[in-house]
Amino acid sequence: MTNSSALKHAVAQDYYWMAQAIQLARQGLYTTSPNPRVGCVVLNQHGDKVGEGYHIAAGTPHAEVHALAQAAEQARHGTAYVTLEPCSHFGRTPPCAEALIRAGVARVVVAMTDPNPQVSGRGIEKLQQAGIQVSCDIMAAEAGALNRGFIKRMVTQKPFVTLKLAISLDGKIALANGQSQWITGPQARKDVQRHRAASCAILTGSGTAAIDNPSLLVRPLQAGFEHYPQAHIRQPLRVVIDSKARLSAGLQLFNDGYPTVQVVADDLPAQANQLPVATCGEHIDLTQLMHMLAARNLNEVWVEGGPTLAGALLMAGEVDELIVYQAPKLLGDQAQSMVTLPGFDNLAQTIELMPVEQVQLGQDLKQTYQVKSR
Amino acid sequence: MTNSSALKHAVAQDYYWMAQAIQLARQGLYTTSPNPRVGCVVLNQHGDKVGEGYHIAAGTPHAEVHALAQAAEQARHGTAYVTLEPCSHFGRTPPCAEALIRAGVARVVVAMTDPNPQVSGRGIEKLQQAGIQVSCDIMAAEAGALNRGFIKRMVTQKPFVTLKLAISLDGKIALANGQSQWITGPQARKDVQRHRAASCAILTGSGTAAIDNPSLLVRPLQAGFEHYPQAHIRQPLRVVIDSKARLSAGLQLFNDGYPTVQVVADDLPAQANQLPVATCGEHIDLTQLMHMLAARNLNEVWVEGGPTLAGALLMAGEVDELIVYQAPKLLGDQAQSMVTLPGFDNLAQTIELMPVEQVQLGQDLKQTYQVKSR
Repeated sequence: MTNSSALKHAVAQDYYWMAQAIQLARQGLYTTSPNPRVGCVVLNQHGDKVGEGYHIAAGTPHAEVHALAQAAEQARHGTAYVTLEPCSHFGRTPPCAEALIRAGVARVVVAMTDPNPQVSGRGIEKLQQAGIQVSCDIMAAEAGALNRGFIKRMVTQKPFVTLKLAISLDGKIALANGQSQWITGPQARKDVQRHRAASCAILTGSGTAAIDNPSLLVRPLQAGFEHYPQAHIRQPLRVVIDSKARLSAGLQLFNDGYPTVQVVADDLPAQANQLPVATCGEHIDLTQLMHMLAARNLNEVWVEGGPTLAGALLMAGEVDELIVYQAPKLLGDQAQSMVTLPGFDNLAQTIELMPVEQVQLGQDLKQTYQVKSR
Repeated sequence: MTNSSALKHAVAQDYYWMAQAIQLARQGLYTTSPNPRVGCVVLNQHGDKVGEGYHIAAGTPHAEVHALAQAAEQARHGTAYVTLEPCSHFGRTPPCAEALIRAGVARVVVAMTDPNPQVSGRGIEKLQQAGIQVSCDIMAAEAGALNRGFIKRMVTQKPFVTLKLAISLDGKIALANGQSQWITGPQARKDVQRHRAASCAILTGSGTAAIDNPSLLVRPLQAGFEHYPQAHIRQPLRVVIDSKARLSAGLQLFNDGYPTVQVVADDLPAQANQLPVATCGEHIDLTQLMHMLAARNLNEVWVEGGPTLAGALLMAGEVDELIVYQAPKLLGDQAQSMVTLPGFDNLAQTIELMPVEQVQLGQDLKQTYQVKSR
């Protein structure tokens, strides 16, 4: 091989193994919260895979530890592929940078640096100081997509917010009389379950809570999690905005044994499981709420509410992603619109979106949009 | 070759040449109205292509005539592939079945029989009586899709109706103040031009005509028809429902030199270019209107109107296909809904659609639906 083709081969190898590490990381999608999803592949000095692992849950070993344990002595002079910069500090587990140094690897390939500005680069520095060759920014976008909530929280102290709405083709969520079950079909509802399961919190409004009395829990069977270890099913925290604290204590949300936080105006005497948030006029300050949710280590917030909450979040600029499940139905002008917004008098004032993806789910069309900042 | 593989080869050949004939037929998409789009390929006795043609415009030669003229003597003992059963009667041109017989072809392969129940099968019979081998139903669905308007008119004496709406993601066509230009982008608008050009008539309502004062003409440049022979640009007939004949004579539709038919209630004294149609209560009988449009040899009707006309056509069961151009915007609950429908009190009463296709056109999503019959 010429030098140039040897280099190309080496780069292709890096992508090959990092793609495997990212696939491993993905296995923690439903369980690592509040930690990021991280995967690791370890090669011996000849380039053969001798270990792999992924982070499963907070408080349990990190991906590197699993992979190095599998590799044992064969890691010496080898290469480790990690989807996120190895940690350099003692948290609930010892620092992974030190584990890699102790294992004697010659090279570490890192998909992306730690998004936490306080520690970013320190793990890499520690490795380099130990004489390990470090390559960085290999498939950073792919690795980052798995942890967009963790990254946003580290960078902005706010969670990544996805607003979900199930609508008809004409943008209606229910008939005038409220009938809405089921506008969308079973495949869309299964997909919703998986998004819930991958989220740290589910946010809803008092209207939806009072009218629909939903549980908002993950139903493992409906999510298609039959083969998922039951012990790992993690129920996201329910967060219900109820500024005047008027919701009935008899609702499912408050009675099924799983935690629910009730967001109330901060001039009310807050009780246990109530989160007092400042109000702007009649309404909860949604930006402050997001900061408070991030402070509770919630990376991804999944919103299942009505048109009022949807509109308020959009107008506050607190929605990162909009997912609509659009059923092939027309409900007509008298039905309930999906989002309550001010009476714009110019199209330039409306909410602008950028298409990300469309997927057909049975008869329904799942559309994912990024929300343009206002 | 074994008999079985020879047979497979022969069948594959039939699909290969018929696909070419359908591609040829497609070239008449914008010009053949009210005739169907038809293509023809002629092979010599050795299986080599010696002629091809397609029908360009009513009153000009049919596809078979073009292809046979090109093939001349080489058609003898050859095979002709035609996307529609050759005609057996004298219309504005002599019958194609006789031309094929005179040319001495040994075999004719027909994609689909003539949909007109009055003449269906006669062309094939005439060919068979002359000793020609005839194969039928080769790619019938593909050939039929090109002529769904012609076929529907022949079978039901009504045109194929496509309802077009440009909407936001929340199903709105305009702000409360009427502002709607432009919700969708240039690629969607170009696509609309092409649908107009492929249609025999454009139907609109008095509201749209009065408020937007549209021309509803095909703009060849916007349609991307720069290289299309200008002589062949055919403007579809504009049809405007104006039951009380109140529209201003000053509108573009009535003043640009292209024909417009004004649909009025049949109790009014109808003038030239007015089409008197029975009314049911306040409204024009849309089913009778469709029969009257079909009686004028209009195969495909493209509807560009407002929510009232859209809703009335849907409730009357007079929409075959719904095309929405959906822009990535949210206009909010106060904006104008895309379709006016009765106040349903049960989801089972709503308009049900079947997804046919989604295509991304720039930022907009073009969605095509078949409308379920009610």
